Amino acid sequence: MREIILADHAGFCFGVKRAVDGIAEALAQTRAGWSIGMPIHNPQEVARLCAKGLKIASDVEEIPEGARVFIRAHGEALSVFKELQAKNALIMDMTCPFVQRAQARAGELSAQGYHIVLLGDIRHPEIRSIQGHVDGSIDVVADAADAEKLPKKRLVALISQTTQREELLASVASALIFRTEELHVCNTVCRATVERQDAVRGLAGKVDGLVVIGGKESANTAKLRDIGLACGMDVIWIENISELDGGWLLGKDKIGAAAGASTPEWLITEVCTKIARM
Amino acid sequence: MREIILADHAGFCFGVKRAVDGIAEALAQTRAGWSIGMPIHNPQEVARLCAKGLKIASDVEEIPEGARVFIRAHGEALSVFKELQAKNALIMDMTCPFVQRAQARAGELSAQGYHIVLLGDIRHPEIRSIQGHVDGSIDVVADAADAEKLPKKRLVALISQTTQREELLASVASALIFRTEELHVCNTVCRATVERQDAVRGLAGKVDGLVVIGGKESANTAKLRDIGLACGMDVIWIENISELDGGWLLGKDKIGAAAGASTPEWLITEVCTKIARM
Repeated sequence: MREIILADHAGFCFGVKRAVDGIAEALAQTRAGWSIGMPIHNPQEVARLCAKGLKIASDVEEIPEGARVFIRAHGEALSVFKELQAKNALIMDMTCPFVQRAQARAGELSAQGYHIVLLGDIRHPEIRSIQGHVDGSIDVVADAADAEKLPKKRLVALISQTTQREELLASVASALIFRTEELHVCNTVCRATVERQDAVRGLAGKVDGLVVIGGKESANTAKLRDIGLACGMDVIWIENISELDGGWLLGKDKIGAAAGASTPEWLITEVCTKIARM
Repeated sequence: MREIILADHAGFCFGVKRAVDGIAEALAQTRAGWSIGMPIHNPQEVARLCAKGLKIASDVEEIPEGARVFIRAHGEALSVFKELQAKNALIMDMTCPFVQRAQARAGELSAQGYHIVLLGDIRHPEIRSIQGHVDGSIDVVADAADAEKLPKKRLVALISQTTQREELLASVASALIFRTEELHVCNTVCRATVERQDAVRGLAGKVDGLVVIGGKESANTAKLRDIGLACGMDVIWIENISELDGGWLLGKDKIGAAAGASTPEWLITEVCTKIARM
């Protein structure tokens, strides 16, 4: 039988697990509830929750009056909470506590007069939710080169999307020091992302190929694939076992398995078990 | 006649000029006053002030009861102010306002619960004066390697000696981001130091030799010498004209002149005029 080596840290992070467990628990009792967009970036797990009664709205307007609404792990802007309250929605907030901390610090520091700089992907829902907690001036940067284009400001607070790398946060902070009198850096980088990435590096040289399991929308899963390739591994990225080409397995005795922070354990187990027997 | 090209920025910075002018003005009226240690790092200028009535004490204990005392540009610890008050001293505070800002921010951020990290030379009077405004926990680091040895702390404030380079402050901040939840960086680096250093670089390739004028105790003058050497210039460092070896001038038609932030204008003028005629 083929040997499967699972990365030391793989699958659900604390925040995703908390959101999924909370939604599943509530649905078991109420059989109905909404989320605005996918509550986590994994289609298979979302399908499982939809089978239990979850409905996905594309925006707030689609939510019916008085409905139960789960706020997803990435969080939502304060304006979304207000719109939901105006609809008498029953809000169940599943925002990751680490994202909540980034939101809160952004809001507090903005209120204290700081210009807010967010490090992250401007299209990512987490960044949009943090932006949505700031009333004052704000910029989003993807790297130090972006930060170098910002004008000088007296007071700047730098806050990171939780899934960014600390090295990138440090390089952006370095760039901002030349453009500020006082720079307040909140290191809101979450360990989960780094742990999953380090775990992929730990498989290098120990396996004949790496299977990365996770949603194609998941940015942190994409990074695991990139790290595997950078370590010289033969990498395949699949959402579920049906996507795995048996030919890829030929001649490979030891297979590494990695999974993003939104990949559920049942899916990891299913993929690993089937690969072992193929 | 030999051509002398004076660096674009040379000699007294704002803080030193303010201290020297203030001491000279007071001595013109009162004919007597004390400083604890040299008020600025230039023996010739200090000698000029001593001729007007300035007395130099080696420590606070040496100051007589009720005496007039000038606090030097680098500042003093709060404990020194208290000891002087206990002696009914008439304190004239000549601390550079940029150093005062670093002292104040260190004290305030410490009171707010931040562990204070100072970037600078632990033996330098400015760093000792900033340290002396902090009641809580504090570390002094010289570079990023020092910062990497510090234990992790939740709240850290990083404050710079005013004469450090911004590049060094940025690299220390980068190192601290991995060791903190929130890092508050006060960019207390003063433009005067950078301007004098850039001005030396601006002379490279334009002169046959560089005369650096300034006290041998002056750290910022030593850096001007180092930069001149790094730019490939033939450099000589003198405190006054008597130290200049005529042989060094042979075959040199164009001479650059640079001076540290504690070198008085009259000394620069004297040296330049004499070199031109030698």
